[in-house]
Amino acid sequence: QISYLRSVDVFKNMHQDFFKYLKKFKFKGTVWAVPEGTIVFPYEPIVRIEAPMIESQIVETFVLSMINFQSMISSKASRISTQAKGKPVIEFGSRRAHGPQAAVLAARASYIGGCEGTSNVLAGYELGIPVHGTMAHSFIMGFEKEEEAFKRFIEVFPTGYLLVDTYDSIAAIQKIIKFKIHPNGIRLDSGDLSSVAPKARRLLDRNGYEDCRIMASGDLNEYQIHHLIRKGAPIDSFGVGSELTTSRDDPVMSGVYKLVAVKIPRAQDTTHYKTFYTFKKSPGKVSYPGPKQILRIIRDGLIKMDLVSLDNEKNIPKGSIPLLKKYVDNGNIVTKLPTLQEIREIHLQQQLLLPRNLRLLNVTQRTSPVTFSNKLSTMIQKIQG
Amino acid sequence: QISYLRSVDVFKNMHQDFFKYLKKFKFKGTVWAVPEGTIVFPYEPIVRIEAPMIESQIVETFVLSMINFQSMISSKASRISTQAKGKPVIEFGSRRAHGPQAAVLAARASYIGGCEGTSNVLAGYELGIPVHGTMAHSFIMGFEKEEEAFKRFIEVFPTGYLLVDTYDSIAAIQKIIKFKIHPNGIRLDSGDLSSVAPKARRLLDRNGYEDCRIMASGDLNEYQIHHLIRKGAPIDSFGVGSELTTSRDDPVMSGVYKLVAVKIPRAQDTTHYKTFYTFKKSPGKVSYPGPKQILRIIRDGLIKMDLVSLDNEKNIPKGSIPLLKKYVDNGNIVTKLPTLQEIREIHLQQQLLLPRNLRLLNVTQRTSPVTFSNKLSTMIQKIQG
Repeated sequence: QISYLRSVDVFKNMHQDFFKYLKKFKFKGTVWAVPEGTIVFPYEPIVRIEAPMIESQIVETFVLSMINFQSMISSKASRISTQAKGKPVIEFGSRRAHGPQAAVLAARASYIGGCEGTSNVLAGYELGIPVHGTMAHSFIMGFEKEEEAFKRFIEVFPTGYLLVDTYDSIAAIQKIIKFKIHPNGIRLDSGDLSSVAPKARRLLDRNGYEDCRIMASGDLNEYQIHHLIRKGAPIDSFGVGSELTTSRDDPVMSGVYKLVAVKIPRAQDTTHYKTFYTFKKSPGKVSYPGPKQILRIIRDGLIKMDLVSLDNEKNIPKGSIPLLKKYVDNGNIVTKLPTLQEIREIHLQQQLLLPRNLRLLNVTQRTSPVTFSNKLSTMIQKIQG
Repeated sequence: QISYLRSVDVFKNMHQDFFKYLKKFKFKGTVWAVPEGTIVFPYEPIVRIEAPMIESQIVETFVLSMINFQSMISSKASRISTQAKGKPVIEFGSRRAHGPQAAVLAARASYIGGCEGTSNVLAGYELGIPVHGTMAHSFIMGFEKEEEAFKRFIEVFPTGYLLVDTYDSIAAIQKIIKFKIHPNGIRLDSGDLSSVAPKARRLLDRNGYEDCRIMASGDLNEYQIHHLIRKGAPIDSFGVGSELTTSRDDPVMSGVYKLVAVKIPRAQDTTHYKTFYTFKKSPGKVSYPGPKQILRIIRDGLIKMDLVSLDNEKNIPKGSIPLLKKYVDNGNIVTKLPTLQEIREIHLQQQLLLPRNLRLLNVTQRTSPVTFSNKLSTMIQKIQG
């Protein structure tokens, strides 16, 4: 890799020491971050890195691509599972994820955000996420008769769900009843679910299949699930794919990585440093100076305010909780990293802290709880003025 | 991995032979595909896999996640680079890609689609894509004076581009002139590019910087580039990020993998097979039966029609070109795979085949050249009727 870099034309004036440095590169900086799973809001600093300039720059793109993508998918999963009102949501979207690694990362983020599991078996293997699957259309189409496919599937997967929409959902359920096949549930994957699900439920109930559950899938998102739940559609669980693993309606989380302060040695004296705050003034892209902390104020078990303040401010509101914690100190991990299960628990607990206004499906109707401290506001006004 | 699968609850009724089979699994099927870089249209079968059912199923999700994502990004890159009318477009979107692997795959797909390079150095290392970079805002902010950052950067990267919008683009250009810094170009990354670019150009030209080029970036997509080019904005190259690497306005390519035919042994006679065609009838998700070929008809150097027909049809239009080629025969690669550079060349040649109607930026105004053969149309009508 280093010799590749040496060969790249733009690096031809680079000092040889740089390549030697890269060979021995180790991140020795300090990292503050909100615990994974924490609910955060726009404009909040969620990671703070203190490191020599070169180290802080080398990690930038990797940090952004991991945090932006997974935070976005966790948020989407949290929105979707909230709308499902306690009914299990399974992540089904590997085939539409942005490549195989994105599929595994999306499964991870979806699980944190409240999904019960994934159909991605690699994510199960690597991360211990519960794996769920149902049969594929092609399995059914591999048999000349649909009922033959159902019977053979249930022999191997007695607790499985039968996919009924390959040809006609209601006709398929009639076959299940006629041939006395007893699956754990059926899955509806197309059509108007708010009308097919009640029909399917009635047909099953009338024939002694009260225990047979109904799973719904097929381009679902939080809005459709909200609609189905409100209409009282008799659906017991949801499979969500493309809309979740790509965050289809907004596939970009614009998290940025900004230089906010620089410490430079005072002239002729390398033991003392002066610090200056930095910020951008580009139109529409102003950045906020100085190392910051988020102080969360909780009242009656609900988030009342997140006060974004400079790290060295003295007047801290009583009882406020600083969200950024030190995870890495001079290159060493100093806070035990939670398991995936624990991260998910943190997130589910955090959901309970959201006041009604911040649970609204339509984000434009929400009021942000984020406030900047007086000191920070004054600095920002000076920059913008 | 196998022992993980054995441990998963849903597999507890699975025959032990299945796990033994997986251990020795090797894909021994046959794969037909259109050459990578070929322009294809909705509803065309771009890959055809002939394999034992279990092999064809095991590869499904991986094949879909690789082809869906990269085809989507290549299409987006092709749209963007077409609008740039020959001006270089560099892919800049790693930090917003869906994870680190998606960033490399997006760089690859963007290069095929017509981009000149990427800022992802790993993609340069692994795939030989030309790497381009410009300075970062944080590099500039690391210095107390902007001009100091410019001077130091140009010492190491004499052919580099200076990023001028950290504080004020025009003021930064004035500093470049005042301090007699001679970069290869400048980069504008914010503001109304159609008004800033002409101002920057005039300022540079009036001061003997006629050779200093202007690169533009900042949430650009094909529509904005179209607008800038039409307005005659004096921009020499474009950097495109999030909009490209996530295909922001449509981040899902709904390519599907469907079973179209099954060969089963005739009863009591394992040397002869009968074949039956399969298809789905789910509402809105009908699939088309039978193994197919795309026959492309080119007239006067332009695509006139793509005839999707059954593979065994006899009346092939004279001079039509079958697009699906055999790449893998019983598990062995039988067609030499092209280099990335060759794939890109194929695509750029293919762009020349597009008639005016198919180059329209607004896809709703286009007319698809795809026609189904009479035999296939009749079969589809029978299914739907």
